[in-house]
Amino acid sequence: MKRATLGLSTLALAMGLSAGGSAMAANQAPTLTPEEFEKAKTMYFQRCAGCHGVLRTGATGKSLLPKDTLKKGTERLSRIIELGTEGGMNNFDDIFEKADIDLLAKYIQNEPPVPPEMSLEMMKEHTKQFVALEDYPTKPLHGRNWENFFVVIERDAGKAAIIDGDTKEVIAHLDTGYAVHVIKGSEHHKVDHPKDAVGRFWYTIGRDGKVNKIDLWQTPDKMLVAETKMAYDARDIAVSGDGKYVIAGGYWPPHFVIMDADTLDPLKVVSTRGINVDGEYVNEARVAAIYTTPNESTFLVAVKELGQMWQVDYTDLDNLRIEQINSAKFLHDGFFDPSGRYFQIAANASNKMVVVDTKTRKLEALIDVVDLPHPGPGANWIDKECGQVSGTTHLGVGTVSVWGSDPINKPDQAWKLCYEVETDGAGVFIRTHPDSQYVWADQTKHPEVEVQQSVQVFDKDTREIVKTIRVTEEEGKVAVHIEFTQDGSEAWVSVWNRKDNSNATGEIVVYDAKTLEEKYRIKGLTTPTGKFNVHNRINHVT
Amino acid sequence: MKRATLGLSTLALAMGLSAGGSAMAANQAPTLTPEEFEKAKTMYFQRCAGCHGVLRTGATGKSLLPKDTLKKGTERLSRIIELGTEGGMNNFDDIFEKADIDLLAKYIQNEPPVPPEMSLEMMKEHTKQFVALEDYPTKPLHGRNWENFFVVIERDAGKAAIIDGDTKEVIAHLDTGYAVHVIKGSEHHKVDHPKDAVGRFWYTIGRDGKVNKIDLWQTPDKMLVAETKMAYDARDIAVSGDGKYVIAGGYWPPHFVIMDADTLDPLKVVSTRGINVDGEYVNEARVAAIYTTPNESTFLVAVKELGQMWQVDYTDLDNLRIEQINSAKFLHDGFFDPSGRYFQIAANASNKMVVVDTKTRKLEALIDVVDLPHPGPGANWIDKECGQVSGTTHLGVGTVSVWGSDPINKPDQAWKLCYEVETDGAGVFIRTHPDSQYVWADQTKHPEVEVQQSVQVFDKDTREIVKTIRVTEEEGKVAVHIEFTQDGSEAWVSVWNRKDNSNATGEIVVYDAKTLEEKYRIKGLTTPTGKFNVHNRINHVT
Repeated sequence: MKRATLGLSTLALAMGLSAGGSAMAANQAPTLTPEEFEKAKTMYFQRCAGCHGVLRTGATGKSLLPKDTLKKGTERLSRIIELGTEGGMNNFDDIFEKADIDLLAKYIQNEPPVPPEMSLEMMKEHTKQFVALEDYPTKPLHGRNWENFFVVIERDAGKAAIIDGDTKEVIAHLDTGYAVHVIKGSEHHKVDHPKDAVGRFWYTIGRDGKVNKIDLWQTPDKMLVAETKMAYDARDIAVSGDGKYVIAGGYWPPHFVIMDADTLDPLKVVSTRGINVDGEYVNEARVAAIYTTPNESTFLVAVKELGQMWQVDYTDLDNLRIEQINSAKFLHDGFFDPSGRYFQIAANASNKMVVVDTKTRKLEALIDVVDLPHPGPGANWIDKECGQVSGTTHLGVGTVSVWGSDPINKPDQAWKLCYEVETDGAGVFIRTHPDSQYVWADQTKHPEVEVQQSVQVFDKDTREIVKTIRVTEEEGKVAVHIEFTQDGSEAWVSVWNRKDNSNATGEIVVYDAKTLEEKYRIKGLTTPTGKFNVHNRINHVT
Repeated sequence: MKRATLGLSTLALAMGLSAGGSAMAANQAPTLTPEEFEKAKTMYFQRCAGCHGVLRTGATGKSLLPKDTLKKGTERLSRIIELGTEGGMNNFDDIFEKADIDLLAKYIQNEPPVPPEMSLEMMKEHTKQFVALEDYPTKPLHGRNWENFFVVIERDAGKAAIIDGDTKEVIAHLDTGYAVHVIKGSEHHKVDHPKDAVGRFWYTIGRDGKVNKIDLWQTPDKMLVAETKMAYDARDIAVSGDGKYVIAGGYWPPHFVIMDADTLDPLKVVSTRGINVDGEYVNEARVAAIYTTPNESTFLVAVKELGQMWQVDYTDLDNLRIEQINSAKFLHDGFFDPSGRYFQIAANASNKMVVVDTKTRKLEALIDVVDLPHPGPGANWIDKECGQVSGTTHLGVGTVSVWGSDPINKPDQAWKLCYEVETDGAGVFIRTHPDSQYVWADQTKHPEVEVQQSVQVFDKDTREIVKTIRVTEEEGKVAVHIEFTQDGSEAWVSVWNRKDNSNATGEIVVYDAKTLEEKYRIKGLTTPTGKFNVHNRINHVT
């Protein structure tokens, strides 16, 4: 390692410190070679930044700045990474080698590198058309029922699988970005609806900020029609109600980007750096989630660390109207009520569900739930007592919280807890279908293998768990995420091959939604996680 | 100077550089002692940051980052600071000693220190009431015609003078922040107007971010009634049409703050860091100017480096609506048309006037003018050919540009150049009054003393200059800024004692607005610059 003698003031300036004093602490940080540093930086980005932040100032996870890590030292930090903590940190000994864990422990005692910005020009350089617009087919080039297709994230393969929901055939594995996080289609919208091909185009967002456009009318070899990159780290994407725009949100840089839905050309970038609900500036104010509002010509952008929902009007990008709606920290993921007017999103550091009224563009309510709510696609159904209700799973505890969500017809029940269902373990996703009697919840976050591998199903009328389904018994695999078919007759659950993640040993298990019996296993998938049924998603069927 | 041996990677990380390579350049920067560094930092902040930015990335002035300054070296940089440049940089040899110029030249070759943020909590700690709300008088405690008071900036004294416009008496010198930049009162507003005491309360913003509230009904010793601090560096302030809120804009941190107009309690902070009209992220996106819109319940915030006007609706601070209106760089200062609907602001790096329609909350027009437009309070009048017109002076050239500004009655002339008036020198401020035949322009930016010390007056009908008025002949003094009395019978011009700036040797010269003859000299003022006549300002008389 090359060393240089530098004036302390220079270093202090670069770090924003006054000369002398605290800058000395940096001396104690373990030195890494440039190669080690680059390796650790990549590992950190892929596995740690999601919770601890690219700038390491903490969010869902703790701050990992040198002021916090130096006092712990390499040995203690290594053990934490290896075994996890009771505070909610996962163990990583099944993913990283011991030497790599030590490397990470050393890395996080050094100052975090400042990641680069990304300009609109840079995004434009990434934009490519694989199929020219004029060559798009005018009708489907296959005879399949594409409205019952499932678009499935093959997380660690960097692929999206297209599965025929009628025949269960995997008809394509499309190359998308690293660890695709969400895939969304052009949806039905009440306001204006010029496109006759709603549901045809789907858009993926990778954790590396790569955006891909999928055309379900194409033959499988040509379904990937366009690509761009809008960030170095990203999580969510949405399509405008008029089908004209795609919006994607960055973790880093912290911004959202509005693109032409035809070509993925980036049109507009808006920074989400800002002042949080406590009045403090947050540099790493990340876009956790983005949604299209079904009744208004707006997007909803959840700015995680600010505790603000930004309702972004897309009718005039040059005179961009945004409502910055104060709510609670840290915003994560959410879903609409059946009317499409109210959006319900988890503020998981506050243990609250936030409700936004997209008509008035104001905060409607805050609902107290339990430890770390996480609804994923969410679930709405009719309860005999409370009327229209909505529910969420929790990352921190095996509880499904259910609240009234119909302020028009049931104002006394609205935004109040109706009941809770105790499950065996903390989970990530809840799901149901209007034609199903049941609500399904996964338990992916529970430490015990048997619970991780099981989903639980409860009855909408009795509110009782009617069945615990062991989806897999194979080592290193967990059950995650439920999605129904178009007609609600089947519920599909992913078997995520978390450990053997470079092979296609994951599967989707298809259950009869009435009998709750296993019907079929769709094999040959690499780390399948989220699944998106075309019909259900574009019609907001939750 | 203490030195420490540090791993290069640590420094590179802190600076956001990859290990090796460009970090080495920092080695060549001249070393300063902590005392020298602090002194240079203060000098830079007070005299250089306005144009070059706190982060030294450049704006009106050039970038002064080490990558740009190191190749010039101390000697060349010192000469530039001493003598100025043809590119528009002032000479500083009349303000700084030679040793201080050398110190600055060394300082700017080092990495800029990262300035701290300022949270809402920190602002609250600065908030003080000198007079309790319940002790505010219910009628004026003096018999003066306070609607013809002038509130005058005594720039380098950190004071605001209150002058009785009827009697010409200086009735108070109020302690305000360092180099107060703007003072604004509660204005008449078409929408809602619950306060019966419009014009009574005035608010100052210092370049140090200090905000003071002045009560013109008080006796002079008690006129300063409240104080807070909302930034480390700031430029503008405004009062909401309903009199409830005060908003101030920061240069650093780059944000705006909405305060309770009664107590100056900070209520809401919004960051203006963002993406500029070219699609690039700007960390130092400064608030150059802030205005209350006369017809809407909104503020207009000019975010200089973004080239965006933000129209901020103050009717609901928790669900804050903002229109981010794209225009041109770098936004500086502006004024309304007589209807109060259209706002006209200089984008001085683009040599354009930007027009915003505050009713539609959209960009209305861009008007090409000449070198560095700067209207200050601006001027509106009736031209025989073009109808309603508006005009601006320019920092870069001795020209007054005049354009049509009545799109309702004169759509063919609207937002098109009507004519230009050549003056002897570049100026900062233009001003007129509806009852005056003349338009006045200063020439403060011209290098020649005789021109600097003169203002020029042109006739609204003939469009010809009718008089050049030498306001002062004393060395080190310049003529700047014109303001009319309530009835338009007098025009007041400041004599700014730029050199002898720690003594009260500045004055205001009062001219008969009809005969253009000198009537009176108001003496005993320290560096008087901007002047605000209560009646004219609160009624948008321009």
